[in-house]
Amino acid sequence: MLKHVSSSPVRDLLALTSRPEVISFAGGLPAPELFDLDGIRAAFHQALCAPDGRRNLQYAPTEGNADLRSLVAARMTSRGLATKAEDLLITTGSQQALTLVATALLEPGAVVAVEEPTYLAALQCFRLAGARVVPVAGDENGMIPSALEEVIKADRPSLLYLVPTFANPTGRTLPADRRAAIAALAARHGLWVVEDDPYGELRYRGAPLPALAVGATDHVIHLGSFSKIGAPGLRLGWLRAPAALLRTLVIVKQAADLHTSTVDQAAAAIYLAATDLDAHIATLCTAYRARRDAMIAALPRATPSGTTWSDPDGGMFVWLTLPGEVDTADLLTAALENDVAYVPGASFYATDPDHSTLRLSFTTNSPDLITTGMARLAPVLRAPA
Amino acid sequence: MLKHVSSSPVRDLLALTSRPEVISFAGGLPAPELFDLDGIRAAFHQALCAPDGRRNLQYAPTEGNADLRSLVAARMTSRGLATKAEDLLITTGSQQALTLVATALLEPGAVVAVEEPTYLAALQCFRLAGARVVPVAGDENGMIPSALEEVIKADRPSLLYLVPTFANPTGRTLPADRRAAIAALAARHGLWVVEDDPYGELRYRGAPLPALAVGATDHVIHLGSFSKIGAPGLRLGWLRAPAALLRTLVIVKQAADLHTSTVDQAAAAIYLAATDLDAHIATLCTAYRARRDAMIAALPRATPSGTTWSDPDGGMFVWLTLPGEVDTADLLTAALENDVAYVPGASFYATDPDHSTLRLSFTTNSPDLITTGMARLAPVLRAPA
Repeated sequence: MLKHVSSSPVRDLLALTSRPEVISFAGGLPAPELFDLDGIRAAFHQALCAPDGRRNLQYAPTEGNADLRSLVAARMTSRGLATKAEDLLITTGSQQALTLVATALLEPGAVVAVEEPTYLAALQCFRLAGARVVPVAGDENGMIPSALEEVIKADRPSLLYLVPTFANPTGRTLPADRRAAIAALAARHGLWVVEDDPYGELRYRGAPLPALAVGATDHVIHLGSFSKIGAPGLRLGWLRAPAALLRTLVIVKQAADLHTSTVDQAAAAIYLAATDLDAHIATLCTAYRARRDAMIAALPRATPSGTTWSDPDGGMFVWLTLPGEVDTADLLTAALENDVAYVPGASFYATDPDHSTLRLSFTTNSPDLITTGMARLAPVLRAPA
Repeated sequence: MLKHVSSSPVRDLLALTSRPEVISFAGGLPAPELFDLDGIRAAFHQALCAPDGRRNLQYAPTEGNADLRSLVAARMTSRGLATKAEDLLITTGSQQALTLVATALLEPGAVVAVEEPTYLAALQCFRLAGARVVPVAGDENGMIPSALEEVIKADRPSLLYLVPTFANPTGRTLPADRRAAIAALAARHGLWVVEDDPYGELRYRGAPLPALAVGATDHVIHLGSFSKIGAPGLRLGWLRAPAALLRTLVIVKQAADLHTSTVDQAAAAIYLAATDLDAHIATLCTAYRARRDAMIAALPRATPSGTTWSDPDGGMFVWLTLPGEVDTADLLTAALENDVAYVPGASFYATDPDHSTLRLSFTTNSPDLITTGMARLAPVLRAPA
């Protein structure tokens, strides 16, 4: 007897973009030409040479590579969230952190509060754990604290899931005052918050904001990732959690995969110690800023009058809302006929989708290709409904 | 509110063996000096060079690297279990396969039938899924099919978990007639069987037996691993399942970690294509055979009269039962004072443990060290109760 699990929207959509002639704004991938291939290859080479080469092919502690935990803790501390190595668990990508948290904290029937729209693989994760997902109202600045308070009182959620900085899919960033208000609500009501922060270092404009965890360190599980600042193929993430929860998460992770790849962790630790990561991230930000600018510049001519879009300060995504009764899933066929792709917005909703929305990713195409792709998209989006 | 999870026996025990003067028979680790470090390092180098280097650092399909799936399928087919690449899902170690199967197939309260004693991280996995674990009686040849039939009728299990070849912790191997009988029972009663086969290629005596999956391909989920024939640090396993279940497992894996490390999979595929794996495994078997022989030879003088032990045809473990009312957990303190370690048997039991049992691993020490370690163990095991 198979449990019912719905088909995976991300996978179905990624299949759309495989034809080489398609300019895809659908994926959420970092740009491969910006990977530090030489640096990462050198790090793997060193990880597999004496004296530690054999140790880096062996089973290893579930908590993760000690050097990697120290380096990540130091970086988090320097970014304003005081963190010790022992506060961290290395995970097999930050996606794994979501599943570990769901397994540790959610009984079937538990309620998870989320932004709407939100990261769809998080929704899938909570649903597989048997949770009920309840959306919290937001605006162009993200979740509204008073709306969260209403949901806390009405639905008694066990967990709040948030991408406070350059959210997927909207690109929105929660301002400092809302972070403080949500942290205070979490502390007052004993609510666990998952602060998912894969994009926070990809900032193209404005000053960094304090992590939500700064204001409620006993109630926030902060997730970070090597995927956007290094490379996603290593499947390396980390979570920062209070000590008692961390002990439980370590046991849950042991059942999940014993530990994350020893060699990938060792290579990442060597790479981070040897690399000026700030300089690498600055290179990424320069390239991605130009791509965002090309997309934002093309939007007025690519969309019908009355369209609104987010203008993100960082991250990977622009979120569009078309005017009228249009369904962007219907328009996708025409877009693919024009060799351009996007993600219809409906699958990012936990409950009632707004079918007039869509997500555009600007990271994997050059400014010129973005301009060309947006020109291909224009007749599709501007067609009379 | 944290879910209750019991402290992890494997982790607590591995901590015992960290003092360098301890000769440890406790771990279940392959011998690091036998890793093909040069071959694996060369494979990582190639995986991170042009033309595919950047692709091997990117996100990748959940199902796994196409070359790796083909190579594993060909090897399984050559070992007698006809398998196509599309029958396989690459997992983050075969430990992950257990969690994926538990998530896909077990509702809270479901019953899982197991050998007793059995692999303790499997027990933990099923318990985390909310399942009730029911042991099936066995003897020195493993699970007794008529006992399984009784459990099927009495407890209606959803799943049977088995390590049919060189089991952990007992080293036992299920004979061909019992495999056929259990496969027939699974087919007749619509029972899912997880056939966990991490050790099957480490055979030191006798002829290979057909996989249980050969007799019931629609009801058996067959798990394999790179950990014992290659290296565990890459966290690479695979599962073979019927098509409908495989589709569900792919979705569950996507929520668990999106996919297994792209670079580790690519390196493993390159390594397997470039290496005479049969020759490498023959080297492993020659070394491990001598280690098993040294341990078996030392047992009569290291144990009190009336002790029984398994004499495994392969794998990593010897299983001892001491005479009388002894508790091997109590003896462990004295063993560690003598700088030798083992795993007390109780934690491998799902229900009523036999406290007079213990597990010895022979793979990580040379024959000479095994002889020395067994001499250290002798006064502990032979002390008057």
